[in-house]
Amino acid sequence: MTAINDPHEIRILIRNGKFQKQTAGFASKYVQGNICILPDKYKNDFLEFCKKNPKPCPLIGFSENGEVKLSKLGDIDIRTDVPAYRVWKEGKIIDEPVNIEKYWKNDFSTFVLGCSMSFELPLIDAGIEIQHIKNNTIVPMYKTNIECESSGIFKGNMVVSMRPLSIPNTIKAIEISSKYPDVHGAPVHFSNPKDIGIKDIMLPDYGDPPELINVDEIPVFWACGVTPQLIIEDLQLDFCITHKPGCMLITDKLNENFKVNLS
Amino acid sequence: MTAINDPHEIRILIRNGKFQKQTAGFASKYVQGNICILPDKYKNDFLEFCKKNPKPCPLIGFSENGEVKLSKLGDIDIRTDVPAYRVWKEGKIIDEPVNIEKYWKNDFSTFVLGCSMSFELPLIDAGIEIQHIKNNTIVPMYKTNIECESSGIFKGNMVVSMRPLSIPNTIKAIEISSKYPDVHGAPVHFSNPKDIGIKDIMLPDYGDPPELINVDEIPVFWACGVTPQLIIEDLQLDFCITHKPGCMLITDKLNENFKVNLS
Repeated sequence: MTAINDPHEIRILIRNGKFQKQTAGFASKYVQGNICILPDKYKNDFLEFCKKNPKPCPLIGFSENGEVKLSKLGDIDIRTDVPAYRVWKEGKIIDEPVNIEKYWKNDFSTFVLGCSMSFELPLIDAGIEIQHIKNNTIVPMYKTNIECESSGIFKGNMVVSMRPLSIPNTIKAIEISSKYPDVHGAPVHFSNPKDIGIKDIMLPDYGDPPELINVDEIPVFWACGVTPQLIIEDLQLDFCITHKPGCMLITDKLNENFKVNLS
Repeated sequence: MTAINDPHEIRILIRNGKFQKQTAGFASKYVQGNICILPDKYKNDFLEFCKKNPKPCPLIGFSENGEVKLSKLGDIDIRTDVPAYRVWKEGKIIDEPVNIEKYWKNDFSTFVLGCSMSFELPLIDAGIEIQHIKNNTIVPMYKTNIECESSGIFKGNMVVSMRPLSIPNTIKAIEISSKYPDVHGAPVHFSNPKDIGIKDIMLPDYGDPPELINVDEIPVFWACGVTPQLIIEDLQLDFCITHKPGCMLITDKLNENFKVNLS
């Protein structure tokens, strides 16, 4: 299949069960979202958690009381428009369905969190080569010792994604990604991985291992949307639905619209 | 003397020969400029040099054909409104007068270049401690091996200023200073000084030596407005006038107005 660029067109395929894979590279000018669906009792604490931790949990869409539409982000039905879901019970994955109609309840809230794909395209446009994109692998992600600010039961450490860059490109990448605060914003760290509790950069906790980092490059770390999934797993919530990693919600919002406008 | 905050008031003192010292800390909310005054034959090449090298030479004011007013920057007479000047002949300083009326010629062009003081205040406002300000010393500056882009006879290497910062503060400082492209913008380098040809960080070429850099800090380097003075010296231009380092032109422009506005 050649990459489809229209977000509505690809959502129709997903809705009809004809697209059940990773969304990277599809409709790449449009914002893709991490999904977290929670029963009402968790709603307020998790909303507050997102507000307190905008770098790992940039909230770009929200619905409550079982509302399945997310009209601000496009013609979306959250029960069918993600290529693959994960249904969690007591911190364990009990199903990986391609739609969640049978699980839907009228007290569900849906949280859509921005994703780093939105700032990778402007980095590439600025002439910065991104290793995992060049190699067609999944960005390496690591558990860290950076504590998120807690809210009610929600607490835990941040997950980060890593891109190796030269120093001039690190400076450029900080400049550019800081203009996209709704999709993780500026990095949280660079250089020594041990500073943030990462023991071996070649052994990521999620995604693919990086290639060896060149002598003129340093690892640059961004807050990652996998953070809430790790927290949900650790907390062993009685029930929760997320997207399957890499299988994101494709919205009608252009990445460019998430840039802080320069006048 | 307590610090005067009104730019017009301090310029009147300067004009009347009652203020002949460094301007750091005075009218600190207002942009201060580096000055370079050149005979007409150098005008076009130096204008082009500034355009090609906006980080070390951010042009914020200009006049030509002997015009002494710089009305866009305030009620300024460039012959009298800088606390101390340097008059250069064949690359040597021949005078350090407090006004240049006797040297003025009708073919002079005046170049005003932005200065890093304009982004230091927003860094401090963001909670970042700046070592040389805390210690009341002059920022350490270094000759580098970073080549400027040449224009006609104007060519040479960049001078940089250095501030030691923690990694989180480096990220914040890149975010903030990148919003002030007219006053040097984002850093040009950080970490290993040898990468840019600096042999000993404790031996700056201009300004005061830094305090020992803490283990959790790295040196962060910004392009510096001293660059054109070094180039003029190296080129041994037959005639040129600059400000005496630290004795800047105080303008009526608020630093805040030099920020790329966020809408």
